[in-house]
Amino acid sequence: MLIGFSEAETFLRNCRDAVIITHINPDGDCIGAGFAMREILSSLGVRSKVVCHDEFPTRFDFITKGNNCTEEFEPQTIIAVDIADEKLMGKYQEIYGGKVQLCIDHHISNKQYAQMTLLRDDAAAACQVIYDLAEYMGVKLTKQCAVCIYTGISTDSGCFRYSCTTPRTHEIAAELMRCFDIDFAHINRNMFEVKSRGRMLLESRVVSLMECCLDEKLTIIAVTQEMMKEMNVCADELEGFAPLTIQLETSEVGILIREREPGLYKCSFRSANDVNVSEICRTLGGGGHAKAAGCTVSGELEDVKHRLIEAVERSLGK
Amino acid sequence: MLIGFSEAETFLRNCRDAVIITHINPDGDCIGAGFAMREILSSLGVRSKVVCHDEFPTRFDFITKGNNCTEEFEPQTIIAVDIADEKLMGKYQEIYGGKVQLCIDHHISNKQYAQMTLLRDDAAAACQVIYDLAEYMGVKLTKQCAVCIYTGISTDSGCFRYSCTTPRTHEIAAELMRCFDIDFAHINRNMFEVKSRGRMLLESRVVSLMECCLDEKLTIIAVTQEMMKEMNVCADELEGFAPLTIQLETSEVGILIREREPGLYKCSFRSANDVNVSEICRTLGGGGHAKAAGCTVSGELEDVKHRLIEAVERSLGK
Repeated sequence: MLIGFSEAETFLRNCRDAVIITHINPDGDCIGAGFAMREILSSLGVRSKVVCHDEFPTRFDFITKGNNCTEEFEPQTIIAVDIADEKLMGKYQEIYGGKVQLCIDHHISNKQYAQMTLLRDDAAAACQVIYDLAEYMGVKLTKQCAVCIYTGISTDSGCFRYSCTTPRTHEIAAELMRCFDIDFAHINRNMFEVKSRGRMLLESRVVSLMECCLDEKLTIIAVTQEMMKEMNVCADELEGFAPLTIQLETSEVGILIREREPGLYKCSFRSANDVNVSEICRTLGGGGHAKAAGCTVSGELEDVKHRLIEAVERSLGK
Repeated sequence: MLIGFSEAETFLRNCRDAVIITHINPDGDCIGAGFAMREILSSLGVRSKVVCHDEFPTRFDFITKGNNCTEEFEPQTIIAVDIADEKLMGKYQEIYGGKVQLCIDHHISNKQYAQMTLLRDDAAAACQVIYDLAEYMGVKLTKQCAVCIYTGISTDSGCFRYSCTTPRTHEIAAELMRCFDIDFAHINRNMFEVKSRGRMLLESRVVSLMECCLDEKLTIIAVTQEMMKEMNVCADELEGFAPLTIQLETSEVGILIREREPGLYKCSFRSANDVNVSEICRTLGGGGHAKAAGCTVSGELEDVKHRLIEAVERSLGK
């Protein structure tokens, strides 16, 4: 059932001992939303714990470290944040599948698996929904909560760059910065700029090998297991790699091919302008959004590339 | 003389036939400020023309193209925007040096060379000052003016990322987006992401050659004339290169060395955290801000590097 702020407030004010589930491959928005929610519940006197299938990446230590519940308790309340589909709960699907009472989300694709879903698909981030909810409830934010919300909003909007950014996104940033001494420049540097040496060298290598075809409208960048091993880069350091494929001024479509295992490739598509890459990915058994979509293709790398190029060519030719 | 909005308004409402000067190596903020000012003057019935020592880069066509005055007229009013020092007017210093009546700026280093200076050093961009001035004056913005102001604010704040961003910066972005259908995602993509193939390959090359020293706290990237020729990249495409030097997670200081001519190197310093690179550059005959400064050093490249490393080492050792 879709609900509004009023029902969410009633639920939160009357709950106890909550588990807050974040999605697999956690990003700044789900981590920020999870820990912001925990701060809000604390101020309501509700004990809660944030959980995730994966470990939280160390670059989010300023949000997560020392800020989670260390007590053991049997959850009475199940909350999911920024999770459009139960499958994205990973191992927690087994435990909490079908039992989520409240889901707070901003994905238009939300499957409404929860008993109550607070969905604002015009919000740039789940953290934007949580800010508006806290304001509606009259909950006084802590500085740590403000840091969580700023981080979620900034990361999911590409630092206010992407089209999901709204006037309200900027207003919330303004209010958070006005009320709290948030070191936003430091946060943004760590979220968007800082890289390991291996990641920098891997980027350098794949760009030097990038392939442009279809009148330079398609750029393909491939990352093999061998490259990652050579540069000492692990899979979770590849975040933010896909947008590289549409930096080239002539690019309409960019594809990042990542070798998962020999003969199996995860392909992330990006659209620079009007091409709907979700449609292209659907023809390859995948899906996603108009500007960012993906699919998994098996075969030899050169053969995989050939099939991807053909699929893009068909779409551009329309 | 430093002035406030009231004096600036009186001046603008009573001026005629204005030339609006922007600085050499024009960026999004001075171009945005110049053309926003022209829009505002138009709405006051004042003829004006934006001038610049250099040609406006083509990526700003959406602001400049077809939007400047084509009539010849003898300027009666001399306005400078985003220019801290008359030297930055380039060839226009000869014509208008000592004659600027109104300067609108946000640089704390402004030399107050104009008869009247409207200076807001807490603003992220000259465009932020112009927005506040227009609001004060009750001038109704055109959409084109909004696009100019958004572009200036976004580019000078690194898309709301840098520490110069204020709550007011976000508020103005929110107001502009709420009132006008600005294609901000497209603007930001073109300002921050799109690169020529040569620029991408040059970046890839210099990163693969980057040198880390002083316990990986200093990163040096060097761009030679030979590299630029090989990659077919011109000097104005090097904008945004310097921040690359502090992407490495261990970096405290980054230096981009650009060969101007054989034996002459322009060195751009960046500080990731607390090191004051302006002080380091002063010891080398240059200057700038705490987090971004520069100097020019002559000699053989390896010798230049050696002197830079020594200067940074002295500073880190303090």
